[in-house]
Amino acid sequence: MRELLAEAAFELFMERGFEGTTVDDIVARAGVGRRSFFRYFPSKEDAVFPDHERCLADMTEYLERATSGDPLDRVCEAARIVLRMYAANPVFSVRRYRLTREVPGLRTYELSVVRRYERTLAGYLRGRWGDAPDGSLRAEVIAAAVVAAHNNGLRSWLRSGAVGDAEVAVDHALALVREVWSRTPDRPVTVLDGADGDGREVVVMVAPRGAPLWRVVRQLESALAETPAAE
Amino acid sequence: MRELLAEAAFELFMERGFEGTTVDDIVARAGVGRRSFFRYFPSKEDAVFPDHERCLADMTEYLERATSGDPLDRVCEAARIVLRMYAANPVFSVRRYRLTREVPGLRTYELSVVRRYERTLAGYLRGRWGDAPDGSLRAEVIAAAVVAAHNNGLRSWLRSGAVGDAEVAVDHALALVREVWSRTPDRPVTVLDGADGDGREVVVMVAPRGAPLWRVVRQLESALAETPAAE
Repeated sequence: MRELLAEAAFELFMERGFEGTTVDDIVARAGVGRRSFFRYFPSKEDAVFPDHERCLADMTEYLERATSGDPLDRVCEAARIVLRMYAANPVFSVRRYRLTREVPGLRTYELSVVRRYERTLAGYLRGRWGDAPDGSLRAEVIAAAVVAAHNNGLRSWLRSGAVGDAEVAVDHALALVREVWSRTPDRPVTVLDGADGDGREVVVMVAPRGAPLWRVVRQLESALAETPAAE
Repeated sequence: MRELLAEAAFELFMERGFEGTTVDDIVARAGVGRRSFFRYFPSKEDAVFPDHERCLADMTEYLERATSGDPLDRVCEAARIVLRMYAANPVFSVRRYRLTREVPGLRTYELSVVRRYERTLAGYLRGRWGDAPDGSLRAEVIAAAVVAAHNNGLRSWLRSGAVGDAEVAVDHALALVREVWSRTPDRPVTVLDGADGDGREVVVMVAPRGAPLWRVVRQLESALAETPAAE
């Protein structure tokens, strides 16, 4: 019933436009009563995005179980749940993307949904970082960055008409955020302990000229035993 | 006239609630005709945020002139234009913050405004970075991070009832974003050029154990002649 209504609604939006379609039109097309519509969807806008509620629930459930591991990895993985929802139905996703560009009310609706994802991710990070200095600030900034990166990759894919692999575009975008914020070294650069002329402990690093800065940083971070938040 | 209408509107929203106030109530209180209201405000929501249009225009104008200097510094400075609008009228800002928390329609309106600021900042960064690798992606991610940081600082100040200096909270939040993304070295760490056993150029760095990672990074970045985006 829910899917039937969403399909009827979307067909009509494509035929007559979003503003030109009433809930009465939708229930007539679906062959059900008006009250059935509102049982499933609070508004006409909700029928355009029938999967976000489930997707938010899936994300919340995933994060509730994600009590260990790198928090940044976890939120990137959680963002991919949204991507997979779009990628599961490329034709519908592209059409909806185009419809949303044209209808201000749908763009506003979408902003609200995006904000809910962002708050979910930020809430998770806040929980993981607890009372760490600037934990709440970092949670909000990183959640916003993850969502912006995800949406940049998703939009590229949608704008292309869903050509190619959506995951590639989004993974590339998320990698930028992870690279900037991650604390986990993953590629060796020579880092040695030592002492300066006055016997103070120092860290000596040797890296090839042209080495990617952020790879070097990961190595250094653990060596310096210092985090950005602790500054 | 515009200010008179905004004041009358806000008084009524505080007295009767946002939903309980009509445009007719507002024009009656202000002693003007109904058409005057709509000449200044497209909707009742706009009357709650009478300064955002001017603020967006100020931000756009500032960024149009900001053709040199560090792009990240520029967007942080542009974000402060919004802060100063709130800080110029603390009592009104705090009341409006509380009203907005209670009225879903105002929250949605606010989301749209925030999104416009974010797009303005991202558009500027995209323009500055032009065809740099991932220029557009970085522009969107950094704009989102700057907006999230700004709003985190602004909300802390509003939640406190506008106690203390709003700029301090926001500067602290923006500093986190700048520290993570900035490319400008500002504190010396010893970085030397050298060569490894095979004659390849290397960079040798010596830093005190416990040195703040991100200060070290700034020094390294220019030495490695490599940027995060170029990876």
